Parts: sequence; C-alpha cells; structure tokens
Amino acid sequence: MNPHSPVKRGYVRPLNLRDGQVEMAHGAGGRAAAQLIEELFVSAFDNPWLRQGNDGAAFVPALAPGERMVMATDAHVISPLFFPGGDIGSLSVHGTVNDVAMNGARPLYLAASFILEEGFPLADLKRIVASMARAAREAGVAIVTGDTKVVERGKGDGVFISTTGIGVVAAGIDTGGHRARPGDAILLSGSIGEHGVAILSQRESLEFETQILSDSAALHKLVARMLEVAPGLRVLRDPTRGGLATTLNEIAGQSAVGMLIEEAAIPLQAQVEAACELLGLDPLYVANEGKLVAICAETDVDALLDVMRAHPLGRHAARIGSVIEDNHGFVQMQTRFGGRRIVDWLSGEQLPRIC
Amino acid sequence: MNPHSPVKRGYVRPLNLRDGQVEMAHGAGGRAAAQLIEELFVSAFDNPWLRQGNDGAAFVPALAPGERMVMATDAHVISPLFFPGGDIGSLSVHGTVNDVAMNGARPLYLAASFILEEGFPLADLKRIVASMARAAREAGVAIVTGDTKVVERGKGDGVFISTTGIGVVAAGIDTGGHRARPGDAILLSGSIGEHGVAILSQRESLEFETQILSDSAALHKLVARMLEVAPGLRVLRDPTRGGLATTLNEIAGQSAVGMLIEEAAIPLQAQVEAACELLGLDPLYVANEGKLVAICAETDVDALLDVMRAHPLGRHAARIGSVIEDNHGFVQMQTRFGGRRIVDWLSGEQLPRIC
Repeated sequence: MNPHSPVKRGYVRPLNLRDGQVEMAHGAGGRAAAQLIEELFVSAFDNPWLRQGNDGAAFVPALAPGERMVMATDAHVISPLFFPGGDIGSLSVHGTVNDVAMNGARPLYLAASFILEEGFPLADLKRIVASMARAAREAGVAIVTGDTKVVERGKGDGVFISTTGIGVVAAGIDTGGHRARPGDAILLSGSIGEHGVAILSQRESLEFETQILSDSAALHKLVARMLEVAPGLRVLRDPTRGGLATTLNEIAGQSAVGMLIEEAAIPLQAQVEAACELLGLDPLYVANEGKLVAICAETDVDALLDVMRAHPLGRHAARIGSVIEDNHGFVQMQTRFGGRRIVDWLSGEQLPRIC
Repeated sequence: MNPHSPVKRGYVRPLNLRDGQVEMAHGAGGRAAAQLIEELFVSAFDNPWLRQGNDGAAFVPALAPGERMVMATDAHVISPLFFPGGDIGSLSVHGTVNDVAMNGARPLYLAASFILEEGFPLADLKRIVASMARAAREAGVAIVTGDTKVVERGKGDGVFISTTGIGVVAAGIDTGGHRARPGDAILLSGSIGEHGVAILSQRESLEFETQILSDSAALHKLVARMLEVAPGLRVLRDPTRGGLATTLNEIAGQSAVGMLIEEAAIPLQAQVEAACELLGLDPLYVANEGKLVAICAETDVDALLDVMRAHPLGRHAARIGSVIEDNHGFVQMQTRFGGRRIVDWLSGEQLPRIC
C-alpha cells in the first residue's frame, strides 16, 4: 500500500467489508475511490503494476522473432453473479484468458474494468474480487491495471466486469477461423452444455440429483500442450454464447467450407441432456465456458486426442466430425437416428446473460 | 464483410438503423449478434483485424530495444450519452488514449466492449459508434477487437463502453507518478473544469451566453511533442474524475512530496468560473478530459511551455506551482487573496457519472 495514500493518513475508517455497500462516491475518483481500489482490488490482485498506482501498466513482452501479440476483450454481465462452479469473477478471468488462448497465444496480462451498482454489498464484491484473483493466479496471468465506475441504483445490475487480455503467439502458429479445409477433422475437448444448464438451473431454482456445475475453466495450458504436438493446428475456438452450433457456423463461414458432425459423437452428460429436455433447450446451442473446438489435419488427430485426453480439461475429448466442401457454408449433422439435418446459427435469444 | 456471414445469406433483413432498437438477441451470440457486429461495428471501425472475425486481434508491436508496452483500461458510464463537445463514443476513445499517453506511450490499438440496454435506439448506437470511429481515426489508433453484451431493460443505462488501450513507451521515458521531486515545476496544459461543467449544464438544462463545451480530446500528440523536447519529464497525468486537486494529491502521495500551487496561475475560463459559482462547484475538483498535468525539472520548463503553447491542445499552458518537501504529502494553494490553504482529496461525490 502506498504510504501516503489517503487511507493510511487516518482520514477514513477502513471499508466495511462485512455490511458496507457500494456508494456513488466509490466511483467519483476521490478518497473513497482510492480506498476501494487499495483495500479491495490492489490487496487482492497484489502485483507490482497495480501497486505503482498509475493509470496503466508497463511491461516488456519479450517477443522472439516471428512472435505476435494478441489482444482480446470480453464484457461479463452474467446473472446470477454466483452460480454452481463459479461466479462473475472467475468467469471474467476464464472468458478472456480463453479468448487469448484460442488465438494460439499464451496469456500474460489482464486489464479489468468494473461497473458497480450503487448499493451492491461490499462483501459480495470482495468475494468476486477474491475469486478473480484466485482464477488469475491459477492461470498464471497478472491483473495489471483496472478501472472502477459506479452507477446509480437501478442503472446497472450489481456488477459488470470487462476484462481485456494480452498474450503472445509463437512463430508459425495461426489458429484463426479462416483456416479450416475440406478433409480436416473437428475435435471437441469435452461434453457440452454444462455452463448454460448450471446458470439456468440456478435461475429457475431447479434441482437435479447431482448438481450440474459450470465448466468455467482456463484452457490455455491445454492449448499449449496441443500446439506442442500439432503446431499446424488450423483453428481453435471456444463454443461460448450460442454454443457449439454457432461456433461451427462461424468457422464454416470464415473458412467458406461445410461441416458434417455426428450427433452420437458429441460428448454430453446424461444429466445435462435430461435438464435440456426439461428446459426445452438444444444442447448444441447452450453456452460452454471451459471447452474448445479444434480443427486439424487428419494426420494430427491421434496426437491431439492423446494430449487432450491426458489433460484434466480434455479427458472426454472426441472427434465429432469433418470439414467438407460446401459453397453455402452449411453445418450438417448426422443424427442418432441416421438422418441428416442442417445445424443453423442460433436465431433469437436462447439464454440471455449467460456470460 | 465476410462473404459467408449469416447476414449475406439473405436470412435476415438489414438492421433497422433508423427506428430499430437493441434486443436481447443482439447479445446472444447468434445470428442477430453477428449482424449487429457486422453492420454496425465492423463497418464503422473498418480494419483488417476486425474483418478477420476472430475473438481477438494479433499484431506485432515492433519494440525497439529498451521500449516497453503499456496497457490501460477505462469503463465509460457517462450520463447523458451525448453532451456539448462529445459523446460517450468519442470520450471512450479519448479517455483510454489519454491514459496510455500519460504513461509516456504512443497509443497503437484499442479494444472496446459494449454493454447495451435492451430497447436502446439503434440510431443512437450508430451515432455513438460513428463518433468512436472518427475519434479513433483522428487519434491514429485502430479498434482491433471488441465484445457486445445486452442486458434487460432497467438493468443498464443505454450504453456503457469499456475501452482498453495498448501503446509503446520509448526507451528512457518514465512518466509515473512516483518521480516528482522537491524543486520540480508543475505545469498544466490549459484551463480546467470545462468537461464537468458541460455535462452538469446539460443535466440541469442550464443555458449560458455561449455554450460551454467539454474539452474531451486525445492528448497523445501533445505528449509526443513534449517528450521530444524533454525526455526527462518526470510525471504526466490527466486530471479527470476528481479534477486537478485529486490528481495533484495522487502524485504527491506516490512521490511522497508536497506541492504548492498558485490559484491565480491556474487557467480558468470566466464562463466556467461563473457556472461553477452558480452550481456550487469548486473548479479544482471538476473533471477534465483534454488536459494534462506535467511535472518537470526547472530546466525543462521553458522548452515544455513553448511546445505546449504551440500545440492547439496546449495553447493556454501555464506553470501553476512547484513541488516542495513535505512528509505529509499535502497539496497547498496560495489563494488569490494571499492566504494559503490545503487542497485536499475530493471527499464524497461531487459529480456522479462524469466519464
């Protein structure tokens, strides 16, 4: 803590992290804001960049020849803020770390900006910030800079968190959505639908025999292993909002190819399947927060599935289909009953505020 | 535009940018979201990174030996969204460009994340995005990646925009708040209080003889000129929320020094002074969005004031005081009447949602 901070001067009492609330003054840039930043954020995210107290953080990314940097950003507005398997804090780290990782990069630094609603309990904010700090530590990324704003009661919804990540892509790696080619294999790192079903169950107060947990997790270490054995990996993308169906349609569009997937090959927990039936959801469109789609040459399939299955976040990895020629960019699915159907983009909204 | 985008397939009608509204589906990650991104954001921010359509942007920052990168982030929740001299779009570019510039860096890339409220008019969103695009173009920075979320009516307030900027600091430059030393001079790039007074006048529907405009502007080109003539410049900071008083207190705290400023030397438009009296505001605490404080060695003062006054954004630059020894880190002001008073941190909230 800064020895000359307005807090240490003894002018103000420590934040009441048990019963206190977010006040408009916490966003006004004065003493109360400085106090919130020091006592809540800097102490949780503890690192030299934040301790410097400047409006930004400096670093030297140490790029080797041929390496590139990647920047990715995500706003998080999930409701409820706390859910089985995570909360908006851990999600805001995982979401952006994964966006960076899907670019084939190792994530280095995060920036975080908070929009708080007046009256939000400081105890909840503390829990969220602690969860963010833990997720960042586990992922090996530092939250090096941030910002906090406060809006009046009824003009926000508790907490929104935007995170931006920076990472480095090794020379020769390119996992952009334009690189899928007919004949490539489509791999999926695990079962689909847990995140969306966990959130919706919580919203609807549904109870299942065992609780369905969000799969929210940071995928960059799995990605690093995959790129070691298959540096020519063509495409990586995490099927978040809009689910697997939307992600495949995006890639098909970017690469101007078709896809053919097999319903029976797509990992799906029996419980999630049951919950989707109950809730009237198609698991293909339900958000995931700890899964990835990888598209690769046929020759890379075995090596990739081996390293994926050896990693805790890829245990149930499977080949779910192939890239085919199709000028229309359609995604088709061989159903369990033997027919084929078009798997279209998500139309309308299936699950609002899922991330 | 992506030739295989869901929009071009003819499945959907173009966005109604005249009478349409933001819908929950625009945040759901499916076709409506893709359409909003393509027709509104990508077309306005037009650049190769966004056109690639990946969840992130790759670039090679071309760092020379000794150069560092800087990352800064800001959430923008200003109300009203449109104000004399700018709007949330231009402000969200200027605010973050300035945070990057205050680190002594040349800004390169921006990431932007939007939190939209259901029902917000698409025509207003289009205006905001166009204004952002213009501000970014004028500043010479590219908005390379982004994200859009939608919250239900009554859970947001029109539009919130978080921007994160990346820039490069030349070797040997360090403008952090810890570098002020007793004997240094305190320079200010121009008159204070315009941004805050412009916003508050709009909120209160006050009318003055001539309209007071926000000073919202990107300061990085001015900073570049200043660093050319004074690479040893000690501290740069923009006095935004909390105003000049809070910024000086922050720096005094970081550097463990005192400051003595002269009220008569602080540039202040007569009209802003009058408005502050009417509104019961102390201009020292009113936010600016196009001004900077520079702290430098006595030997750099003349050269700096020369280049500042030669630049459109520094025409009224002035030396407003000196850094002094003070273990308590107090900022004192010699008033117009000859006395001295402590200029403390902003306590409580003066102007909510000013940026």
